[in-house]
Amino acid sequence: MVRMATRRAETTEESRRLLVAAAAGLFAEKGYRQTSFVDIAERAGISRGSIPWHFGNKLGLLKAVLDDRLQTVLTGVAPPGDDRSGDPLDQVMDFIRLPATRLFITLLAEAVEVDSPIREHYAQLHSALRQAVQSRIPAGAVPAGTTPEAFTVLLVGAVIGVHAQWRIAPEAVDLEAVQAAIRALALAGPRSG
Amino acid sequence: MVRMATRRAETTEESRRLLVAAAAGLFAEKGYRQTSFVDIAERAGISRGSIPWHFGNKLGLLKAVLDDRLQTVLTGVAPPGDDRSGDPLDQVMDFIRLPATRLFITLLAEAVEVDSPIREHYAQLHSALRQAVQSRIPAGAVPAGTTPEAFTVLLVGAVIGVHAQWRIAPEAVDLEAVQAAIRALALAGPRSG
Repeated sequence: MVRMATRRAETTEESRRLLVAAAAGLFAEKGYRQTSFVDIAERAGISRGSIPWHFGNKLGLLKAVLDDRLQTVLTGVAPPGDDRSGDPLDQVMDFIRLPATRLFITLLAEAVEVDSPIREHYAQLHSALRQAVQSRIPAGAVPAGTTPEAFTVLLVGAVIGVHAQWRIAPEAVDLEAVQAAIRALALAGPRSG
Repeated sequence: MVRMATRRAETTEESRRLLVAAAAGLFAEKGYRQTSFVDIAERAGISRGSIPWHFGNKLGLLKAVLDDRLQTVLTGVAPPGDDRSGDPLDQVMDFIRLPATRLFITLLAEAVEVDSPIREHYAQLHSALRQAVQSRIPAGAVPAGTTPEAFTVLLVGAVIGVHAQWRIAPEAVDLEAVQAAIRALALAGPRSG
């Protein structure tokens, strides 16, 4: 596919998709600042000049990558009420292992910087993740004494923070045990009622 | 204090402390890479030349800052069994607002990079945080169906990830409600027994 790229293909959706995929991988591995247009063009097998054609500048490419990965995350989990993918609480914890989560954490530092150009984009990203998670929490799994909104912030927070610990020291974090803990916590409330 | 700095003071513990405090603030605000020795020397009111004298290089300074902030976090919470600072679960959530947490999140991206020189330092940091949290969780607050270790990873993860969401969009995260949720979750298990 890459070797067949022609001048015409470079202005198509296919070349855009290849560039987004290459950039997502490189941003997650090396970080945003350390990745150059040359790196991205090389991995995608697309000429460097087509990047500004598609995205304007590097920031435009970053926003395209974030949007694309968010869609991957949202479509990768089953819609609310759909039983095909097993338990919604397990799905929430599956976020921890997603390549998209790896990217989101690598770029988090860029987003929290003062006057970061992607802060607003990250706010939308977190908001979309919270909505997706909240819509999938079974009504009975919100423990007494808390609200669906607060429980959702806690679950999304746990995904971010457990990923961070696991990524830094995989041998120190037992993901299966953490998943069991989430389940025990979520079910403890209703069961006591 | 700063204006009285003399050549002798610049080689003392006091000048080291001023440099660490200035660097911690600047790293948290601007990030590690964006902060120069000139910025740090200016804010500390200490001559730039004393930074290599104390820390060798910028990485040495970063490690000194991380160690210092970790000590601040660990001594800022009451020791296990000490009642003077209120409820241990509330203390855990207080971590979310600490300036040190702000710094740790800003620097997280540096730590997760491939071949990061501070990854091992971060592994120690997370490990120390988990030990501190685990030693403060009341025995009765670990819900049935989970282990103290997994519950601790989850709590430390929640602190990291709730901070990240709050920092990106403070208006979207109700910290009091999240704190209430943590309490409801931790207490739901034992109460049902």
